Amino acid sequence: MTDTAATPSRPAAYTELMRLTREAATLGATAALLGWDQETYMPPAAAEFRAEQLAQLSSLVHERMTSPRIGELLARCEADGVLADDGAAAANLRELRRDYDRATRVPPDLVHEMAEVSSRAMHVWREAREKNDFATFAPWLEKLLALVNRKAEAYGWPEGGEPYDALLDEFEPGMTTARVTRTFDALRAGLAPLIRAVAESGVAPDTAWQNVRVPVERQAAFNHEIVGRMGFDLEAGRLDISAHPFCAGLAPGDTRLTTRYAEDQFPSALAGTLHETGHALYEQNLPRRTQFGEPAAEAASTGIHESQSRMWENFVGRSRPFWEWALPQVQRAFGVPELDRLDVETAYRGMNVIRPNLIRIESDEATYNLHIMLRFDLERAMLSGDLKVADLPAAWNERMRADLGLEVPDDARGCMQDIHWSMSAFGYFPTYTLGNLYAAQFWAALRQALPSLDDDIRRGEFGSLLAWLKENVHVHGRRYTAPELCERITGQPLSHEPLLRYLEAKVRPIYGL
Amino acid sequence: MTDTAATPSRPAAYTELMRLTREAATLGATAALLGWDQETYMPPAAAEFRAEQLAQLSSLVHERMTSPRIGELLARCEADGVLADDGAAAANLRELRRDYDRATRVPPDLVHEMAEVSSRAMHVWREAREKNDFATFAPWLEKLLALVNRKAEAYGWPEGGEPYDALLDEFEPGMTTARVTRTFDALRAGLAPLIRAVAESGVAPDTAWQNVRVPVERQAAFNHEIVGRMGFDLEAGRLDISAHPFCAGLAPGDTRLTTRYAEDQFPSALAGTLHETGHALYEQNLPRRTQFGEPAAEAASTGIHESQSRMWENFVGRSRPFWEWALPQVQRAFGVPELDRLDVETAYRGMNVIRPNLIRIESDEATYNLHIMLRFDLERAMLSGDLKVADLPAAWNERMRADLGLEVPDDARGCMQDIHWSMSAFGYFPTYTLGNLYAAQFWAALRQALPSLDDDIRRGEFGSLLAWLKENVHVHGRRYTAPELCERITGQPLSHEPLLRYLEAKVRPIYGL
Repeated sequence: MTDTAATPSRPAAYTELMRLTREAATLGATAALLGWDQETYMPPAAAEFRAEQLAQLSSLVHERMTSPRIGELLARCEADGVLADDGAAAANLRELRRDYDRATRVPPDLVHEMAEVSSRAMHVWREAREKNDFATFAPWLEKLLALVNRKAEAYGWPEGGEPYDALLDEFEPGMTTARVTRTFDALRAGLAPLIRAVAESGVAPDTAWQNVRVPVERQAAFNHEIVGRMGFDLEAGRLDISAHPFCAGLAPGDTRLTTRYAEDQFPSALAGTLHETGHALYEQNLPRRTQFGEPAAEAASTGIHESQSRMWENFVGRSRPFWEWALPQVQRAFGVPELDRLDVETAYRGMNVIRPNLIRIESDEATYNLHIMLRFDLERAMLSGDLKVADLPAAWNERMRADLGLEVPDDARGCMQDIHWSMSAFGYFPTYTLGNLYAAQFWAALRQALPSLDDDIRRGEFGSLLAWLKENVHVHGRRYTAPELCERITGQPLSHEPLLRYLEAKVRPIYGL
Repeated sequence: MTDTAATPSRPAAYTELMRLTREAATLGATAALLGWDQETYMPPAAAEFRAEQLAQLSSLVHERMTSPRIGELLARCEADGVLADDGAAAANLRELRRDYDRATRVPPDLVHEMAEVSSRAMHVWREAREKNDFATFAPWLEKLLALVNRKAEAYGWPEGGEPYDALLDEFEPGMTTARVTRTFDALRAGLAPLIRAVAESGVAPDTAWQNVRVPVERQAAFNHEIVGRMGFDLEAGRLDISAHPFCAGLAPGDTRLTTRYAEDQFPSALAGTLHETGHALYEQNLPRRTQFGEPAAEAASTGIHESQSRMWENFVGRSRPFWEWALPQVQRAFGVPELDRLDVETAYRGMNVIRPNLIRIESDEATYNLHIMLRFDLERAMLSGDLKVADLPAAWNERMRADLGLEVPDDARGCMQDIHWSMSAFGYFPTYTLGNLYAAQFWAALRQALPSLDDDIRRGEFGSLLAWLKENVHVHGRRYTAPELCERITGQPLSHEPLLRYLEAKVRPIYGL
C-alpha cells in the first residue's frame, strides 16, 4: 500500500529525484527543530546566533530545492509515460514541479531582500505596536508591499486572475481570489444578521466559571491526558509550553505541539491544546514514515491544515457531547469546588459566547470570520494601491465599526495587532476562514458517515472521528489539492453554507433566537 | 581586547579562512543541538530519523572542514609573515592546520566504515552487557581495534613514539603516551598504599544520611539555584534532565548541561550537577561571542575540560568549607527532618568515603584513578596485539584483584561496563585522570593566588574562583596546548604530586591515618 520512491518499476531519474528531495527535507527538518527549540527551551542569549543558524539552513535547503539537477530530473520524469500513468508518482511530480517553479522564479536577490526587510520589519512592528506608533511601522509596510508585489510578478498568475492570486497560491494551491471573494461575501451576508441578532438578544451566558483558579501543573497534566485521549501518539511527539502556541511536524516520528497556561483561564488553554492537537494529528498521520520528503507526505494546504485544528477546537471542543464527557473529567482532574457546581449546559453555553472583540485571536467562532474578511479586503487594496498605507488605520477602524460595531481605541489593538504583514505573509489571512469553511463542510460529511459520532464523543471516544479524518484527509498528503480534496470528500465545491448552517444551529438556541 | 577575524590588518586569506571555519562551526552547533535534543526531549519514535539527520550534518561539516579551499587558505596564511608575528592568529593557524591534517589524513572510506561499525558495535555492546555475554561483543571489539589501528597509521605519530600517541593526540594534543605512563606510574605508587591504609583503618564514615528521600522537584529547584550561584549564566544556558548527565556548549550564548535525580540519592545528583557545571562554566566563558568557530574559542583539550568538572565536583564540592555553606542550604531547601540533624563534619566525611568499587563511575576520588590506569594499560595492550581480545576478561579481572582487591562477578560489571571502546574512543580514558591531575595542579596554584578562597567558599561566594579560572584557563581557548597551559599556570609540567598531596591531606585525617 505504500508508494515509496524505491518501487522497482519506477525509473532511476524518479528515484534520484526522491532522494534529493528527501535530503532537502532532512535539512528542513533540522531547521524546524531549531525553530521549535527557539520557541520552547532556547536560552535568551542564544537568539542572535540562532538567527544565523536558521539563515544558514534555509539557504542550504533553498540551494538544494532550486538545483539545476532537480530541474533536469523533473523534466526527464515528466516525459516518462510510465510515471504519467502512476497516480501517486504523477501527483508527486505535479507538486514538485509547482515547488520548483515557485522556488526558481523568484530571483535570489529578491528572496534575500525580502528575508532581510521582513526580519527588520518584524522588530519595528513589535516596538511600534508596543508604543502604538503606526507612523514608524508605515514606511516598512510600504517597503514590504513593494517587495511582495515584485514577488507576485515573479510568480505570475493565471489568465483572468490578479496579482493576489500569486500570493494566495503559496498557501492555498488551486484557490483563486475570485472564489474566495464570492464565498466570503456570501458568508458575510449570512453572518452579519446572526451576529446582530445575538447582540440584540440581551442574553449573556455565564462565563464566570472560566476564571476559577486552577494550578498550572494540574492543567498541564490534564491537557497531556486529553492530547493522548484524542489519539495523538505521545511516543512520537510532545506537548510543551510556548508564548505563542504552535504545532510543528518536525520529522518522521516527531510531531510537537505547544500550548500555554494561565491559572485563571483553563478553558482557553484547553481550547489552544485542542486546536494544536488538530494540527498535530494531521502531521502525525501524514505518510512520513515511508515517504518523508515527498509531497505525498506533506499537508495539502494551509486552509486544510486549519480545518483540522478548527474541527477539534470548535466542532468537537465546543460541542455539547464533548462537555458531557469533559466536564466530569475536568472536575476530577482539577479538584476545584467551584467547578464541582458547574453543569454541562452552563459549560456548553459559556464555551459558545458570541461577542465582537477588537482582537482577532480572542474572537469567537462567528465574529472571527469578519476579522479575516476585513484583513483580506484591506491587504488586497493595499497591494493594488487602492488603499494607501497612510490611510490603513482609518480604513481599518471604519470596517471594525461597520462590521463588528466596535470603536478601535488605538492602532495597537487595531491594524497593528497581527504579526503577518510585518513578516510579509500577504495572502495568508484568508486561509483561517477557509479552514473554518472546510471544517464545516467536512464535518457535515463525516456526520453522515458516522451516525454514532455524538455518542462516541459523549463517551470520550474519538477513534471513529480520527479514523475518518485519517482516511479522508491525512493520508493523502498533497496528492489532491484542497479544492480537489473538498470535492472528493463532500461531493461539492467550497461553499459558505455548511459553516453558516452549523453556526445558526448552534448559536440561535443559546441566544433564544 | 578581542582577537576577531575582522581585524583590518589581517590579510584577506585569513578573513576568508575564519569565515569558512565559522560556517562549518555553525553547522556543527546545529548538529550539537540535534544531539542535545536526542538526550533530553526527543520522542522515542524519532530516534531512527534523528540518526539520519545527524549523519547528514556530520558529513556536511566534514566536507567543509576538509575542503581544498581551506587547505589553500591555510598555506597562504602560513606563508604570511604578518600573521606569524600575530600571537592570536598564529595560534589559530597552528590549531587549524592540526585539525585540517587530522581530518584529511584519514581516507573517507575509513571514516565511513568506522562510523558504521561503531554504531553497530554500540548496539551489540548494549545487548551483550545486558546479557553478560562477552563472546558476542568480542568480534566487534576485534573489528574496532583493526580500524582504530588503521586510523592511527593514517594520523601518524612523532618519531620515537607509538601508535597510541596518534589516538591520545585526538583528545589531548601535545600529550604523549610515554609521559602519561610515567605520571600514572608515579601516581599509582603513591595511591596504592594510601588506599590500602584506608581499607585497613577499620573506619567507616556515616553515609546513611545520603539516602534520605527528597522529592525530585525540590532537588531540581535546589540544583538550579546552585548552578546559578556558581556563576553559570542561566540566561545563556539551561539545566535539564537526561539519563546520562552531560554538558554541551552548543553555540554563542547557549551552553546546556544536564543532571539526573533519584529521590534517595540527592548527594549524587548534586555531585553530578557540580561536575557538569564545571564543564559548563568553561564552555560559557570561552570567547565564543566574538570568535565563534575559531580554535581560540574552543576548549584546550579533553583533559583540561575534565579538570574543570573535577575541580568543582571534588575540590570544591567535597571540601569542608563547601559543606559549611551548603549544609544549611540543603536543610532549608529540602525540609527533611533527618537532614536537620546532620552536622557539617558528618556530611564532609560522608562525601569523602574511599572504598574500591567495581564500577568506575561510582568510584571515589582516589580509587577512580586506578580504574583509569587499568583501562589505559589494557587498551594499549589490545592495540599492540600483546593482549588478545579473548583474554581481556581474564586480564581485567586480574588487575581489579591486584589493584583494587575486588573480585569481578561478571563481565557486565567488568570489562563491558563502559561504552567507550564500543564507540571506538580508544585514547580517551587517560583524559579522566589527566583531568584530576590538572585540577589538583591548578588548585594548588590558585590557592596560592587566592588566600581567602576557603572563606569565600564558606560564604557560598564562588566569584573569586571563577574569575581566576576564567582568566587563567577559560579565555585562552586553544591558544595554548594543555601542557603549555599547565606550565603557564603552575610554572611546572604535569606532575602526579599535587593530586597525591591533596588526597593524602584530605583522606588521612578522615580515616585517622
